[in-house]
Amino acid sequence: MSRRHAVVVGAGYIAVEMAGILKSLGAEVSLVIRYDKILRSFDQMLSEKATESVEELGINLIRHDTVENVECDGAEKVLTITTKNGKVLEGVDCLLWAIGRGPGTEKLGLEHVPGIKLGPKGHIIVNDYQETGEPGVCALGDVCGRWELTPVAIAAGRQLAHRLFDNKAQAKIDYCDIPSVVFSHPPLGSVGLTEEEAVRKYGAEKVRIYSASFTSMYYAVLDHKPKNHFKMIVLGPEEKVIGLHLFGINSDEILQGFAVAVRAGLTKAEFDRTVAIHPTTSEELVLMRNPTPPTVKVD
Amino acid sequence: MSRRHAVVVGAGYIAVEMAGILKSLGAEVSLVIRYDKILRSFDQMLSEKATESVEELGINLIRHDTVENVECDGAEKVLTITTKNGKVLEGVDCLLWAIGRGPGTEKLGLEHVPGIKLGPKGHIIVNDYQETGEPGVCALGDVCGRWELTPVAIAAGRQLAHRLFDNKAQAKIDYCDIPSVVFSHPPLGSVGLTEEEAVRKYGAEKVRIYSASFTSMYYAVLDHKPKNHFKMIVLGPEEKVIGLHLFGINSDEILQGFAVAVRAGLTKAEFDRTVAIHPTTSEELVLMRNPTPPTVKVD
Repeated sequence: MSRRHAVVVGAGYIAVEMAGILKSLGAEVSLVIRYDKILRSFDQMLSEKATESVEELGINLIRHDTVENVECDGAEKVLTITTKNGKVLEGVDCLLWAIGRGPGTEKLGLEHVPGIKLGPKGHIIVNDYQETGEPGVCALGDVCGRWELTPVAIAAGRQLAHRLFDNKAQAKIDYCDIPSVVFSHPPLGSVGLTEEEAVRKYGAEKVRIYSASFTSMYYAVLDHKPKNHFKMIVLGPEEKVIGLHLFGINSDEILQGFAVAVRAGLTKAEFDRTVAIHPTTSEELVLMRNPTPPTVKVD
Repeated sequence: MSRRHAVVVGAGYIAVEMAGILKSLGAEVSLVIRYDKILRSFDQMLSEKATESVEELGINLIRHDTVENVECDGAEKVLTITTKNGKVLEGVDCLLWAIGRGPGTEKLGLEHVPGIKLGPKGHIIVNDYQETGEPGVCALGDVCGRWELTPVAIAAGRQLAHRLFDNKAQAKIDYCDIPSVVFSHPPLGSVGLTEEEAVRKYGAEKVRIYSASFTSMYYAVLDHKPKNHFKMIVLGPEEKVIGLHLFGINSDEILQGFAVAVRAGLTKAEFDRTVAIHPTTSEELVLMRNPTPPTVKVD
């Protein structure tokens, strides 16, 4: 069987994960994005490193472009795709659109329920307790359009159940410090504020950045030596950890415990009081030294 | 080249790691231990699961025994080993003793330094600030015989440097909640008290145990489906997390962040307030339900 050619459209985590999986399985992969980087809602460091890694993986990254025309050779079921900038992608047997999710509320007949209001894109509007304006009708998860992640919907559902059936009148999900991992190749993960968000919220003079770039010992005996890049954002003289951004091998499994620590408001000193576990990738996060001022530019 | 036969003696982490590495590299491996389980200083769950996994890996585990006699065929440099119980191990080309470390202080001439005292096994006795009884002479690391781990020695050295050269008169290493990982196949890790230590220290009625046994999604498409086993030990009605014991894939990288959380005295509720990162192995530690009383028997 000839080598397959997949074209993935989108710069979000689903596009990036699927492109990485298909490439790793041996397909030729083109990734079409509207701007110059992938994962642009993440910290700039993560977005930059992820964009580099996609190209290092051998994915054909097509920037500042979008799909303009798709033609199908009926006999062979092979697509020819033309982009807006005139690139022609031939012999395509998979075209994957990963350009966002809609709430799919059009055909539910919600217009007949006076208390339920929809946002401009059709998302159901709820308060902090998942309540619509209609008594007895709640909504949660992706349909509400906020933090569209499986565990967030599960957590919201659990809190709602506690409130409705377990006499916990104040139970609600807290959207603060939700950790998130992208299972790219290599993976990356994030919790708390990006550098840009931190500077906007607190001012550059109150924010300091710790960084570490290193090769995980996993690659010690391999010729290929990709680097991990970790960034920690701390606030004020007490150095409260307000953001963690991890790029590279093991970031996916490392993040959860540190997310507990960030969520609880712990400081850099509390991180450092914990003895390092050697040799791991994770130990770099309790051994960071020499903070620098933020470098991100904010309007 | 014929298959190599390595005999490893010892039940501690170095013996277990080396036996696992040699076996994974393709050697025939026998592991000779004095009792019935390996890693007996760890939580009983870890010790049991690690002992099972060593045998599942195909290592020839020789229990309640020790090496009695070693003969070398001079021409072929091959060993024949006889154990105390009469087992004969033939064709051995590597005999590895991993039965503990001595401080190696005999030939340092410490007997000429009046202020320096040695313990019964030759370890240098120091106070909490690494000071011997001799002014200006400090000692740290394995030679002191407490928590013989590289990062502990590094942390102790860093604190000593802060005290001597950075005007931090109270700087000293805290031996509380030091995390530790064994790079066995699969790895395991531990921080805080074992179930037995917790029950001894606080009484069974104040201690509760959360457990999770599951197959990591890493194995989803594989025939081999080994399980992870996680145990969390909590104290009192506030459920302060006082011990974590992780067995199975990714335990090595998961532990560091959770060790920060345990070291800082966080509670189970603070773990659970953190949204899970799906799908990872680590998320199980913020999703544990239905605690049970301790089952360990204490005299």
